[in-house]
Amino acid sequence: MNKSLLVILAGWLLPWAVLAQSELFTPQISSTDGQIARQLRQQGLGGQHSAYALVSSLTTEVGARPGGSSNDALAVKWALKKFRQLGFDKVWSEPVSFPYWRRGAESARLLTPSEQHLAITALGGSVGTPPEGISGEVLHFATLQDLEKANPAVVRGKIAFISNRMQRARDGSGYGSAVQARGAGPATAARLGALALVIRSIGTDNDRLPHTGAIRQPEDGQLVPSAALSNPDADQLVRLFERGIKPRMELKLDVGFDGEATSQNVFAEITGSKSEDFILLGAHLDSWDMGTGALDDGAGVAIVMAAGELLLKQPQRPSRSIRIGLFANEEQGLYGGRDYLAKQQAMTPSGLMQHVFAAESDLGAGRIYRIDARVNSLGWAMVQNIHRHLAPLGIELGENDKPGGSDIFPLIQAGVANIALRQDASEYFDIHHTDNDTLDKIDPESLNQNVSAYAVLTWLAANHEVGFGTGELEPLSRDE
Amino acid sequence: MNKSLLVILAGWLLPWAVLAQSELFTPQISSTDGQIARQLRQQGLGGQHSAYALVSSLTTEVGARPGGSSNDALAVKWALKKFRQLGFDKVWSEPVSFPYWRRGAESARLLTPSEQHLAITALGGSVGTPPEGISGEVLHFATLQDLEKANPAVVRGKIAFISNRMQRARDGSGYGSAVQARGAGPATAARLGALALVIRSIGTDNDRLPHTGAIRQPEDGQLVPSAALSNPDADQLVRLFERGIKPRMELKLDVGFDGEATSQNVFAEITGSKSEDFILLGAHLDSWDMGTGALDDGAGVAIVMAAGELLLKQPQRPSRSIRIGLFANEEQGLYGGRDYLAKQQAMTPSGLMQHVFAAESDLGAGRIYRIDARVNSLGWAMVQNIHRHLAPLGIELGENDKPGGSDIFPLIQAGVANIALRQDASEYFDIHHTDNDTLDKIDPESLNQNVSAYAVLTWLAANHEVGFGTGELEPLSRDE
Repeated sequence: MNKSLLVILAGWLLPWAVLAQSELFTPQISSTDGQIARQLRQQGLGGQHSAYALVSSLTTEVGARPGGSSNDALAVKWALKKFRQLGFDKVWSEPVSFPYWRRGAESARLLTPSEQHLAITALGGSVGTPPEGISGEVLHFATLQDLEKANPAVVRGKIAFISNRMQRARDGSGYGSAVQARGAGPATAARLGALALVIRSIGTDNDRLPHTGAIRQPEDGQLVPSAALSNPDADQLVRLFERGIKPRMELKLDVGFDGEATSQNVFAEITGSKSEDFILLGAHLDSWDMGTGALDDGAGVAIVMAAGELLLKQPQRPSRSIRIGLFANEEQGLYGGRDYLAKQQAMTPSGLMQHVFAAESDLGAGRIYRIDARVNSLGWAMVQNIHRHLAPLGIELGENDKPGGSDIFPLIQAGVANIALRQDASEYFDIHHTDNDTLDKIDPESLNQNVSAYAVLTWLAANHEVGFGTGELEPLSRDE
Repeated sequence: MNKSLLVILAGWLLPWAVLAQSELFTPQISSTDGQIARQLRQQGLGGQHSAYALVSSLTTEVGARPGGSSNDALAVKWALKKFRQLGFDKVWSEPVSFPYWRRGAESARLLTPSEQHLAITALGGSVGTPPEGISGEVLHFATLQDLEKANPAVVRGKIAFISNRMQRARDGSGYGSAVQARGAGPATAARLGALALVIRSIGTDNDRLPHTGAIRQPEDGQLVPSAALSNPDADQLVRLFERGIKPRMELKLDVGFDGEATSQNVFAEITGSKSEDFILLGAHLDSWDMGTGALDDGAGVAIVMAAGELLLKQPQRPSRSIRIGLFANEEQGLYGGRDYLAKQQAMTPSGLMQHVFAAESDLGAGRIYRIDARVNSLGWAMVQNIHRHLAPLGIELGENDKPGGSDIFPLIQAGVANIALRQDASEYFDIHHTDNDTLDKIDPESLNQNVSAYAVLTWLAANHEVGFGTGELEPLSRDE
């Protein structure tokens, strides 16, 4: 192509490119839908839905519900029953199997310089110690990287201790870097011949309540008993090292894998008036065995259920369908989310193409402060339009290509469009994966704001024909 | 006596009474002592003393130190060594014996409506359960008074649960009423034939960390296994009752008395230049077995030791002596304080008369906001004078006849004068008697303000000849 033709073409294309960004080509929200959005906002904020009652019921009557436990089975029954009571058009479940990990008694104490009880919990997926426990000298590493570089001759037969602390942030961004010690530390400690690994809890609090969480299972299966100390206990060890005292520790963990378990992904649908394509709102039904899974993820379960409840109360169904998915055993490795992806991919034609977009609530019950997305450009224009109806909730417009969500992350990786309503996670990691994750930590007003936002987003997107890009977006290779 | 004589006498006495309250008869503080008070204040606030280092050392190197434990013995050695290192004129200890109570494993879980782990701890002095535990239906009482009025036929064979919650207050005043459930509940439950007693923790937090604390041993020795649930666990039970669900609980407590133990009261003295009479500054060296005894009472130990340290740095000794007393096994029944009283009373002439007054730091490390006392009128005038030198620390003048202190309470009851530097206890009962009582809960600046106040009070009172009333005050019969 010669230069002058290029100039002519550019001159012809430019106005169209500008127009595509302009109001003329931006998907419009009808005044009726704007009016409905306002009502939904008010109903959400005013608590004209069951969100708090739902999370109260789940955490009180069922309690902790680790994947594969008897309470997990109760939670599945609970979810099916509640969805039916709320009047969803379709309610069903799909089995999900995974290795069952159990936690028995666990304890640790300092033997030197004095006998001191330590607040500790095994990391999820850890191997146990012999019943009599193990004991040894503790070796201090400031970071996982320091442990990775350590001389195996020094580490062998010792208890490796990683002390770096997670930093507090509204967007929870301190988690990603700190959690590497939990994910990769156990296999690293095993490779170096350590007796065990103890890490500072991945958490921002100062309570004697350790934070559990899953470890990454290495391909060679080589692990050592691995546990997290509460932050004050980790501080205590660090102070001993600062004083030149070499602590000795005893560790007893009666934990380990025990066969296979089957749980269920639980789904409910609002059937659209014009389309079988659907918006997927996700949360996970399981919790860790500690606490009662109120913030993680009873709140998310309640938020997406109650958002659906508000839409069900509308005089008519939206154009598109809405699917609420409560996923199984997120905590121990996204088992429910990965199973769902596999089943959707196995459908002919692929069920993925029916997903308008997916969104997930799994970061507690803090207020939503921002909307991000991973959608195509027309989808992003629609997100900007929807944002005008979210702004009164104190929500700012974020960025495109910033996906979010746990159970739905496999879907996003496979190219499903995503909208992410970001919650304020400033205090979430004080509580996350600890015994402290109980109902009292949920602020009902913040919970209501979340319900409002999900209801408004979902109604406006479900009552429109704009595509958000599922099938057009590049698959993501990024690991979470 | 006839009326006219009374009038004449009154006319003669009145001006004297007025004068006694006036500046003319008010004990004066010399400008030199005022200058020293200012220096002490600055040195205290500026951290020119070991307070934080002391509480850090005690809680890190010794840790929890329940009366009679091996760590308790380490704490006694620690105190003797630190007093000598600080250069006190005289350092000694006196043996204190008491029944030894031990805590082994303890656990509880809901059996109905689902299996739920409960955060629980035995109350100090409780009897244990059989090794296999006990289980039964839980019966809900809002208050101890409700339990006291209950029909034994209804309570028999059930687990009694008292749910009233302690209220937060700066002066810690919510404690006195709430703690009755812990003190008297176990014997009440036994009298009614209950299987066990569980109470809501006497604490103001929302953490899954139960608060232990001593129960009152009844004369007939009849008790049931008794334990405290964390506040969120108590909330959980209350919610179940509100839903009409009758919870069943299993309780396993491997605890109980086990022979006799001997610990030590540890003393250090600054020997006055003119008098063997002394001001007693008290704290207690023991802690509960939970936490590391940082606020209760490592802080108090550090405050009174560091106040003494500042006075030792003065170029000359004060007129009167100063005695620092670190008492044994306060937690399980003021054993050290009661032993001390008995030994002082047994002296000829009574050692009590040597006590100018007693003061105690045992309410954490919050800022001192007020000075109260139980002294004679001249002593109160002196307190008012001293207060002028405490006011720059943000301390207000309180009231006479408002005594305070734990270990020294037996002394106060026996008529020893008392000055009480009141600490802000707004957050103290979040932490009190829990695993959360660790060094990180101490604010070094508040700790320094406490040291300042004790140093100023003690210097000014020790360098003066005014009496505070020991021996003149009515014995107190009030129970704490």
